[in-house]
Amino acid sequence: MIMSVPYKTYLEESQLPKAWYNLRADMKTDHRPILNPATLQPVTVDDLSHVFCTKLAEQELNNTDRYIEIPEPVRDFYRMYRPSPLVRAYFLEQALDTPAKIYYKYEGGNTSGSHKLNSAIAQAYYAKEQGLKGVTTETGAGQWGTALAMACGFFGLDLRVYMVKCSAQQKPYRKAVMETYGANVIASPSDTTEVGRKMLAEYPDSTGSLGTAISEAVEDATTHEGYRYVLGSVLNQVLLHQSVIGLEAKAAMDMLDEYPDTVIGCAGGGSNLGGLMCAYMADKLKGKSAPKFIAVEPASCPSLTRGKFAYDFCDTGKVTPLAKMYTLGSGFIPSSNHAGGLRYHGMSPILSQLYHDGYIDEARAVEQTKVFEAAKLFAKVEGTLPAPESSHAIRVAIDEALRCKETGEKKTILFGLTGTGYFDMAAYMAYNAGTMSDYVPTDEDLARGLKNLPKID
Amino acid sequence: MIMSVPYKTYLEESQLPKAWYNLRADMKTDHRPILNPATLQPVTVDDLSHVFCTKLAEQELNNTDRYIEIPEPVRDFYRMYRPSPLVRAYFLEQALDTPAKIYYKYEGGNTSGSHKLNSAIAQAYYAKEQGLKGVTTETGAGQWGTALAMACGFFGLDLRVYMVKCSAQQKPYRKAVMETYGANVIASPSDTTEVGRKMLAEYPDSTGSLGTAISEAVEDATTHEGYRYVLGSVLNQVLLHQSVIGLEAKAAMDMLDEYPDTVIGCAGGGSNLGGLMCAYMADKLKGKSAPKFIAVEPASCPSLTRGKFAYDFCDTGKVTPLAKMYTLGSGFIPSSNHAGGLRYHGMSPILSQLYHDGYIDEARAVEQTKVFEAAKLFAKVEGTLPAPESSHAIRVAIDEALRCKETGEKKTILFGLTGTGYFDMAAYMAYNAGTMSDYVPTDEDLARGLKNLPKID
Repeated sequence: MIMSVPYKTYLEESQLPKAWYNLRADMKTDHRPILNPATLQPVTVDDLSHVFCTKLAEQELNNTDRYIEIPEPVRDFYRMYRPSPLVRAYFLEQALDTPAKIYYKYEGGNTSGSHKLNSAIAQAYYAKEQGLKGVTTETGAGQWGTALAMACGFFGLDLRVYMVKCSAQQKPYRKAVMETYGANVIASPSDTTEVGRKMLAEYPDSTGSLGTAISEAVEDATTHEGYRYVLGSVLNQVLLHQSVIGLEAKAAMDMLDEYPDTVIGCAGGGSNLGGLMCAYMADKLKGKSAPKFIAVEPASCPSLTRGKFAYDFCDTGKVTPLAKMYTLGSGFIPSSNHAGGLRYHGMSPILSQLYHDGYIDEARAVEQTKVFEAAKLFAKVEGTLPAPESSHAIRVAIDEALRCKETGEKKTILFGLTGTGYFDMAAYMAYNAGTMSDYVPTDEDLARGLKNLPKID
Repeated sequence: MIMSVPYKTYLEESQLPKAWYNLRADMKTDHRPILNPATLQPVTVDDLSHVFCTKLAEQELNNTDRYIEIPEPVRDFYRMYRPSPLVRAYFLEQALDTPAKIYYKYEGGNTSGSHKLNSAIAQAYYAKEQGLKGVTTETGAGQWGTALAMACGFFGLDLRVYMVKCSAQQKPYRKAVMETYGANVIASPSDTTEVGRKMLAEYPDSTGSLGTAISEAVEDATTHEGYRYVLGSVLNQVLLHQSVIGLEAKAAMDMLDEYPDTVIGCAGGGSNLGGLMCAYMADKLKGKSAPKFIAVEPASCPSLTRGKFAYDFCDTGKVTPLAKMYTLGSGFIPSSNHAGGLRYHGMSPILSQLYHDGYIDEARAVEQTKVFEAAKLFAKVEGTLPAPESSHAIRVAIDEALRCKETGEKKTILFGLTGTGYFDMAAYMAYNAGTMSDYVPTDEDLARGLKNLPKID
């Protein structure tokens, strides 16, 4: 096969970004302030510092510094698994017989199996630097918990992960990976917190929920000296750390003299898409010509395509601050779509604002079996077995490439392959067996979730 | 941290090997001929062609061509996951506080999770080129089966994998990966072969063995028009294909102006060590100064350290040809050591000969809990969760580096990190729980295995 550019392009380690890019500094309209739920006033660094590390609280509210230096120990750690490769999907192009050029940025080549490590190591570093004993978090599917376990293991920080009980039972191996890195994994609801004990007293057979796990992790952190709570998506600080994806991707594309016509990412909380698109979004915010940006979400949890742009809690337990974002309502219970990382009722406030203002051109909801169809084709021709989350982006990249085949356009498509599906084989088994369903919520389902939104303008 | 060379070194794709290196062409003493078990005469290409693809049968017996061209479609596929990185283990060095420099060649960055893909894609290619419908194989732990499923999926070849029944039951996710790539996974013993039906009639509750699975796969291939049998280790052809590891490793070390003092690899069937060391072994065979070569095996299955150099069957079912190799006897049943890939009674005839002739300097047997202790330290400081097999090499690399700490020597150590442990978490769980045992066979155990060796000089 004639390969005009390398199949994989790696930056030199000396070309790795030395600073994260803070998209907010360039946004025409900043996202609406995050509100303290008790006072309904904008949260301050001081408010947030009780829950988050101080440096991270500052990053959360920073909308002025365009670049924020990546601390040297974080850059050292990044060298273990970064730069991640920019891949020209020659074999996928061939299989589709498309004139389009398809590139993807592959973030799954580390043991956490996803891009989550980019923010986990940063958050662990700031906790260490602040002299904390440890951090707490929650995890559903387990990717974030694994990434954080690796990061805390590296810096010698204590970590307590509240893992949704049914996940902990269904995924004992994910739990084992976290424990191997030294994390303490607690099935939620647990008897170690007030919230957990109350839940267990009321529902002794509860298999848990992400909402309860968040509440437990926050309570644990705020009631123990020397601990803070950390979170793997949605937050501005997480999008900031994930900017390494987009900065690297653009640098590698520049080396190849390529500029994408279309940038595609899956969107659950929004951190991966926010990271991937940031360097090109900078062009758009400056009024230059820029790619078309497409956010892809599951049809079963369609916050951008069918949600409301409104203030809402970031968690189902209603203990977190309020953010203005696209939401299905914090009470919305997504169906058991297998892409656990995309089952979130809301969306990053930054991405929500950009979508609302038309900077993100399109949001597209895709059905699960179509996603796995794309995932299997991708695995077969490009080798890597993709995560269900990432496969949402693959689906749309394929659809765009097939459209080019019809029109004859030679578009350049860039998408984010955020992770691998090695711990998601139950979902593949359901697809292979033909038992996977394409549940899409009805308008009535959505109305139920949206009717209790807080009344804040 | 000051990093004098990059943490990871990648060759350019243009520097990828265009030919495999056939170590046999340079050996002073070739290994003794492989014998047809029916006639006890050296096997011919014709003999082997009934079981293997013809090109592979030729490679198996080729001891004259120093280089064998890698077919272009195989080189194209290699570009999906090769070059694999040569990593300077700065963080491990720091953790050990050693003056030694530690490098490792990382082969786990593909979905099969190991180096097995290097030979799988070559064998699938030759089957395709020969116009075959498909191939059969057996798999125990599942890495080889996964690699071959990827390779056959890529070339559109039919694949039937006989998976030891207890493995298929214990590792449903491994099975699911293979099926996702289109393989037909059959729990062995099965009712699809004569051998399997006989076994089931006699032992209806049998959970299978690698010996039976091999016999089933061979029977299946030889009784179906357009099928051949393929195997993932031990064979000369497999060592040939795995030479890409060593050729790349040496090219990358050369770029860094480094030459190892010590080369370390785990050895089960021998394909990974054979591949890693080949380029440096070439120096030794030419009489130049060369590294010390150390083969590492589990104390529970010590073929090199406690076996006999003798003719033996390559399988427990005694259907394969006879090879002169270090063996514990084809009837030796290794204990349930978790490094499934190292539970083999014999050893590659090439490596056996090199060890017998003193070209491989040392074989070292290590106990399982020491291996997992090393694996956990490695995971924590270097990020990647290693396969149990690879962790045997990590153990010895650490021991060598600690020895340097004592003596103050600044040795350069190179070891093979053959794969990841993501599908081996049951073993890590046993280690974490303190329930892992360090079984070492007694002399009586070994005598039982060795007493029935064929009487061939």
